[in-house]
Amino acid sequence: MTNDALTLAVLVGSTRPARRGPMVAAWVADAARRHPRFAQVDVIDLADLRLPLLDEPVPAVFGDYRNPHTLRWAETVRSYDAFVVVTPVHNASYPASLKNAVDYLYAEWNGVVVGFVGYGAHGGTRAIDHLRTVFAEVKAVTVPQEVSLELLADVDFNDAEPADPTAPGRLAPRPQQQDALDALLDAVAVWARPRAAVG
Amino acid sequence: MTNDALTLAVLVGSTRPARRGPMVAAWVADAARRHPRFAQVDVIDLADLRLPLLDEPVPAVFGDYRNPHTLRWAETVRSYDAFVVVTPVHNASYPASLKNAVDYLYAEWNGVVVGFVGYGAHGGTRAIDHLRTVFAEVKAVTVPQEVSLELLADVDFNDAEPADPTAPGRLAPRPQQQDALDALLDAVAVWARPRAAVG
Repeated sequence: MTNDALTLAVLVGSTRPARRGPMVAAWVADAARRHPRFAQVDVIDLADLRLPLLDEPVPAVFGDYRNPHTLRWAETVRSYDAFVVVTPVHNASYPASLKNAVDYLYAEWNGVVVGFVGYGAHGGTRAIDHLRTVFAEVKAVTVPQEVSLELLADVDFNDAEPADPTAPGRLAPRPQQQDALDALLDAVAVWARPRAAVG
Repeated sequence: MTNDALTLAVLVGSTRPARRGPMVAAWVADAARRHPRFAQVDVIDLADLRLPLLDEPVPAVFGDYRNPHTLRWAETVRSYDAFVVVTPVHNASYPASLKNAVDYLYAEWNGVVVGFVGYGAHGGTRAIDHLRTVFAEVKAVTVPQEVSLELLADVDFNDAEPADPTAPGRLAPRPQQQDALDALLDAVAVWARPRAAVG
């Protein structure tokens, strides 16, 4: 069973304009596509889903989804065995857009393996800490290995106005970050189970 | 200075349909209006504001707000000295709607005193824990006293179908919860400073 090919989604957690999430996700997806265990690797950008703030009348744990956007999102999550969640830190925690997307579903997260790639002045670590409790609640398994990209060390601002907060810069991870990402992907591959095995 | 009258907002943190937040906020506001230190007590329901997921291109810390809904929200928050935040627990943390509303602003939260009233199966305590780090990041001061309403002990479901998750029930707090609320409001009154003193 553990040799089965896995499907992996790299989730862009922030939907804010001028966010850095897409370039971080592209870096993660590139590495994942080189990994032998992942047969399919897709980037899912929450900005494309355009989920409104949670508008389901019944809590997700009851599985009684009413809205078309919820049903579409459920189908999407259900099609992956594992996730790498790319998250910035917003005010010492995760962005609302990411929590909103998690809260829409329940059963679809059960048994999923999740790894975190954080970014921010201090590597997004506080966002990751809060997300571990959130994903545990929806019965996903989070791997301890994580990647924490630091804005002043892993992003190149040379071609941007340094004082412009809307300039995302260009991702230039230090070599140890590539190692950390490979370790994260290895851990996800070790712990993830195909949906057929857990569902 | 500490004898100055204070303005207090009771913030309904969840915007989910069938939420219990408005009835909890009404209970908090009733008690606050009986408190001698609060000259003005208003309930602010985030559902009425209809804030979209954070769509400002510049992080709030830079104070460069671009959207009309952000400017309106900033003006609202700026007009209060203190907040009681009413929060459910969604997946072992706060609801996305509440974090979204916090993340829109920065300077307007600075120096504000915040108290928490949580509700949920276990009193919303995990939501409150995460919110303390969030509000500290926007330089608000959170008082240690808190109210944790437990759904099975402080809500009367007698006139509802118990198995229906969309039935909010009727708030019926145990006597000790009223005491806890009064202690929370006292603490907010002790620590809050009029905006003129901190702004």
